[in-house]
Amino acid sequence: MTLSVIPVPGIGEVHDGDDLAALILSALHAGDIALRDDDVVVVTHKVVSKAEGSMEAYGSEREYRRIVERESQAVIRRRGDLTISITRQGFICANAGVDRSNVQPGHVVLHPRNPDRSAHGLRQRFEHETGTHLAVIITDTFGRVWRRGLTDVAIGVSGIAPLLDYRGTVDTWDRRLEVTEVAVVDEIAAAADLVMGKADNLPVAIVRGFAWEPGTGRATDLVRPPEEDLFR
Amino acid sequence: MTLSVIPVPGIGEVHDGDDLAALILSALHAGDIALRDDDVVVVTHKVVSKAEGSMEAYGSEREYRRIVERESQAVIRRRGDLTISITRQGFICANAGVDRSNVQPGHVVLHPRNPDRSAHGLRQRFEHETGTHLAVIITDTFGRVWRRGLTDVAIGVSGIAPLLDYRGTVDTWDRRLEVTEVAVVDEIAAAADLVMGKADNLPVAIVRGFAWEPGTGRATDLVRPPEEDLFR
Repeated sequence: MTLSVIPVPGIGEVHDGDDLAALILSALHAGDIALRDDDVVVVTHKVVSKAEGSMEAYGSEREYRRIVERESQAVIRRRGDLTISITRQGFICANAGVDRSNVQPGHVVLHPRNPDRSAHGLRQRFEHETGTHLAVIITDTFGRVWRRGLTDVAIGVSGIAPLLDYRGTVDTWDRRLEVTEVAVVDEIAAAADLVMGKADNLPVAIVRGFAWEPGTGRATDLVRPPEEDLFR
Repeated sequence: MTLSVIPVPGIGEVHDGDDLAALILSALHAGDIALRDDDVVVVTHKVVSKAEGSMEAYGSEREYRRIVERESQAVIRRRGDLTISITRQGFICANAGVDRSNVQPGHVVLHPRNPDRSAHGLRQRFEHETGTHLAVIITDTFGRVWRRGLTDVAIGVSGIAPLLDYRGTVDTWDRRLEVTEVAVVDEIAAAADLVMGKADNLPVAIVRGFAWEPGTGRATDLVRPPEEDLFR
């Protein structure tokens, strides 16, 4: 089945206190995009954080570094200006997700306090207003240890199982698959990023046609626990 | 613009010596899928390796481990059965990409000897036969250091710049973007994996509607050089 990734234009700048669900629903309406059962609504965390007021003013590089430290549970590596740490929410990324792009000058955007809860809130609103059964994924752009370039990943999920488990599945030769768990929500986040761009005001995309598994898992289920981690 | 990810059914089992380009073109024809300018043809490496004879018989676990060592330039970490190493081709992944699933019992599939060259060969054939301008990406399924679950990434590219460079781009507030390079070929690989599945015979997908940049880069450009790597 063909997968479609549909950008949602017209959301515009989001401010502290905005009703993000309403903004997205009205952009969908204006763009003549009707949500359907089993759509995955992918939302970049930045608009979620802005609507929730997870922003902060900072005056200097030192203050910025202090915010990064405060948003970190534990630092994993430092080099120059770069800090790799575990965020309050439990993700491992650069600079604790504290971002200075696409926000008014002198301000940073933090990760949403609880991205799964934010995803859940959006999903409830979308489902209620449209009578559909959906999943919602909130994304950020992360680096990778051994690969250059960034890709989008899921930092909040609602309604969808974050990992697709192939354990017990056999291949065409009846051999057990070596690939056991696919991070489908990260693959969906990556697909959505292809239509979003980085400098454009396209913070939302609909991924349609993927047969996802309903689930109650959290995005932090994707973080490798320390005992499995060979590189922490 | 909406992105489409179109699976190509009907390719069937691929054997040593098969003309893979011809098999894919005939599956496209049978599936009534016409290649268009700017399509990205995504091909899982397994069918490429099989067609090129990058397979090998093995009789025991010890022999399998020996093949993994031989396909490794350098080992980065070991734990139990798992080896993280740099492959001959220069990628960092588990078990040097030596895979026992979806291959006849008693055999392993290796990475193609030169995945960029394989991608280039496919692209030339597709462009020549269809008169279109395309990109080709060859993929494998890799793990991540800090995130559970696997995602597909590019191990061979032709025609497309592997990294989309945002340096010099400004956001809506005229601030330079902090995200400088996006690994678009990995995001395309991830999007394609969503329609391919793992146990199914769907080794090829078309990604249509992404405005990629033409380029002559290689997939190994995505490997972080040792001097940038904080975790090697």
